[in-house]
Amino acid sequence: MAKFHFEVTKKDSLSRARTGVIFTEHGEIKTPAFVPVGTQATVKSLDNSELTKLKVQIFFVNTYHMVLRPGLEVIEKMGGLHRFIGLNIPLITDSTGFQIFSLGNSKRLKIIGNEKEPKLVKINEDGVIFRSHLDGSEHSFTPEKSIAAQGILGADIAISFDECTFYPASHDYSKAAMERTHRWGLRGLVAAQNKLKDYQALYGVVQGGIYEDLRVQSAKYISSLDFPGIAIGGVSVGESKKEMKSVLKWVIPNLPDEKPRHLLGVGEIDDIFDLVAAGVDSFDCVMPTRLGRMGRTLVQNSKFKVQSWTIDITKAEYADDKRPIDEQCECDVCKNYSRAYLNHLFRAKEPLAYKLASFHNVYFINNLAGEIRKSIEEGKFSEFRKSYL
Amino acid sequence: MAKFHFEVTKKDSLSRARTGVIFTEHGEIKTPAFVPVGTQATVKSLDNSELTKLKVQIFFVNTYHMVLRPGLEVIEKMGGLHRFIGLNIPLITDSTGFQIFSLGNSKRLKIIGNEKEPKLVKINEDGVIFRSHLDGSEHSFTPEKSIAAQGILGADIAISFDECTFYPASHDYSKAAMERTHRWGLRGLVAAQNKLKDYQALYGVVQGGIYEDLRVQSAKYISSLDFPGIAIGGVSVGESKKEMKSVLKWVIPNLPDEKPRHLLGVGEIDDIFDLVAAGVDSFDCVMPTRLGRMGRTLVQNSKFKVQSWTIDITKAEYADDKRPIDEQCECDVCKNYSRAYLNHLFRAKEPLAYKLASFHNVYFINNLAGEIRKSIEEGKFSEFRKSYL
Repeated sequence: MAKFHFEVTKKDSLSRARTGVIFTEHGEIKTPAFVPVGTQATVKSLDNSELTKLKVQIFFVNTYHMVLRPGLEVIEKMGGLHRFIGLNIPLITDSTGFQIFSLGNSKRLKIIGNEKEPKLVKINEDGVIFRSHLDGSEHSFTPEKSIAAQGILGADIAISFDECTFYPASHDYSKAAMERTHRWGLRGLVAAQNKLKDYQALYGVVQGGIYEDLRVQSAKYISSLDFPGIAIGGVSVGESKKEMKSVLKWVIPNLPDEKPRHLLGVGEIDDIFDLVAAGVDSFDCVMPTRLGRMGRTLVQNSKFKVQSWTIDITKAEYADDKRPIDEQCECDVCKNYSRAYLNHLFRAKEPLAYKLASFHNVYFINNLAGEIRKSIEEGKFSEFRKSYL
Repeated sequence: MAKFHFEVTKKDSLSRARTGVIFTEHGEIKTPAFVPVGTQATVKSLDNSELTKLKVQIFFVNTYHMVLRPGLEVIEKMGGLHRFIGLNIPLITDSTGFQIFSLGNSKRLKIIGNEKEPKLVKINEDGVIFRSHLDGSEHSFTPEKSIAAQGILGADIAISFDECTFYPASHDYSKAAMERTHRWGLRGLVAAQNKLKDYQALYGVVQGGIYEDLRVQSAKYISSLDFPGIAIGGVSVGESKKEMKSVLKWVIPNLPDEKPRHLLGVGEIDDIFDLVAAGVDSFDCVMPTRLGRMGRTLVQNSKFKVQSWTIDITKAEYADDKRPIDEQCECDVCKNYSRAYLNHLFRAKEPLAYKLASFHNVYFINNLAGEIRKSIEEGKFSEFRKSYL
């Protein structure tokens, strides 16, 4: 992990918000950073030149999906994820924990299982046995296998194997899962010495559900280990997102200042100012691309008086609307296409619709993250937050 | 039609192949030109910046689809197709004839009709009554309505309303349909005076099925009218493509040298050299984008020893193939992506797959058309044809 390091460049005086730079083998990441999700080694609909144009600094690839398809042997033969994708920017892979546990609870998998035991995940001290969401085949993951897989993928940031509990999990269960995650974290650190490439940084994962004592304990313990960065897990799951502010308030003051902090799976617009104010340095979220595919395009609340920051571009009222999605947006889609044309493309189910909407939405969030960085640098974060929300 | 004109710049000495330039309100088209198809006002998966990068000179939009969705009132309010799409290059619209007759024969529409009379197209002297393939609603088209619709769309080239007969149609039926097409052509020319914009050029349509006497008669008649360009129809339908070379041999010597000739709906690679040699100036074909969506990517036959000029990138043998689709291709996809990555995207059903394959395929044909133009200019068309095929 020679190359990886983090520098805090500015701290906000009224909150825990801060700017910084994460230095990696494949480039720098200015924080706070939005991290789009490229589940299957592609940020849906967007090609590499578009990601470059969007100034995407880093994106997330899901180890679970890579293991099942195309398979690690393909990625290894191709020389790692960067070469496979053909893009030379920082990447981050996850531990597989979240996918295993969330897909293990999905309805689709229940069909494969039997009615009495629909969950297709078996957890023991060694690791997890689960079934593929693609074909029902059985697979297993251990902390060592997760690290070895991420070593082959070769992303700049890897994440320690964790158990992601579901909301609402009891205190007892959350404690047991957290302690297992801690033990798995230690095993992962050992495995990382041989299995990760020199430039890869392994983030430890703080769990502990919605319980203050557990979150504090987890934050302190993970901080005490030799992880170069810290991920905060279990906040995006189910209803627990309501507790995000509390969880961050318990966790972040117990993390070391000098390590970067990534919040896993959270980043709707309403959340972004809160999580930055709480001291998060990076956050990943599928929202911009997922909403984009549904025809929901991001606009500024304050200007458009809409709920949840989006307009539904597929609605009849936009069929002959000459305006761009957002008149003040400077993205290529807003500069070149009308709402009417987008409305038509969505109604005609044209694939271009999903691309254009995703492009705009990723630009919107990425640009917002840039504006937030600027406001922190200039000591105006709280003002910007108020004016924007 | 002030702006529209055509200049022949070079004639091949061994065939009827020729180069030229079509001058239009929205730019020049160097011929022989490949015309991609953007059925619903979008060349599937490709955005305007990509069409520009691909040096697409002109593309086809189907009037029939525009009438049904988004509807002419939307296009009119938006200020025509160019503004609706947001792209300032030459466009061509068709007469609706082909869609009405081909969709009228489709299985999907037969379900809407009754068993005794499954065809949902009624033809009389005035025009055609048909049902929408979207919702079964009844619509009618006449030569005047087709021209009026195309006037609202505002493409640089419009096409006269024609009856597109199906293979194999009898001599009697082909003759009756051709004569109707001729009468409709005259009515269209009259309508064009008021209904087309000044810059729009109306191409007359040569029909006549697979019968030499009818094709000769049709070519001579359409040439005698005041159309600034000639389209050759009915060659792409069913098995009649086998007769393409014969049809072109009957038709083209009977067309005036000074008018541009468009061959409707034909342009697979095997055909391109034949149709150029026969004297065609432009041709449209959905092949590159349709094949692209299926994962069939174009490669040079001579080099790859494949049938039908494609490899099926979804096959397992490409799963870890580091090479680009075609090593000599200079398109952005071949410069930046491996077969392995494309294989993965197709298997994972990622929308990016369709875009990348379509981009390459359109580049491939468009580039081939450029090489053909160059070979004609240099007096080497026959040599190039031999070396390529």
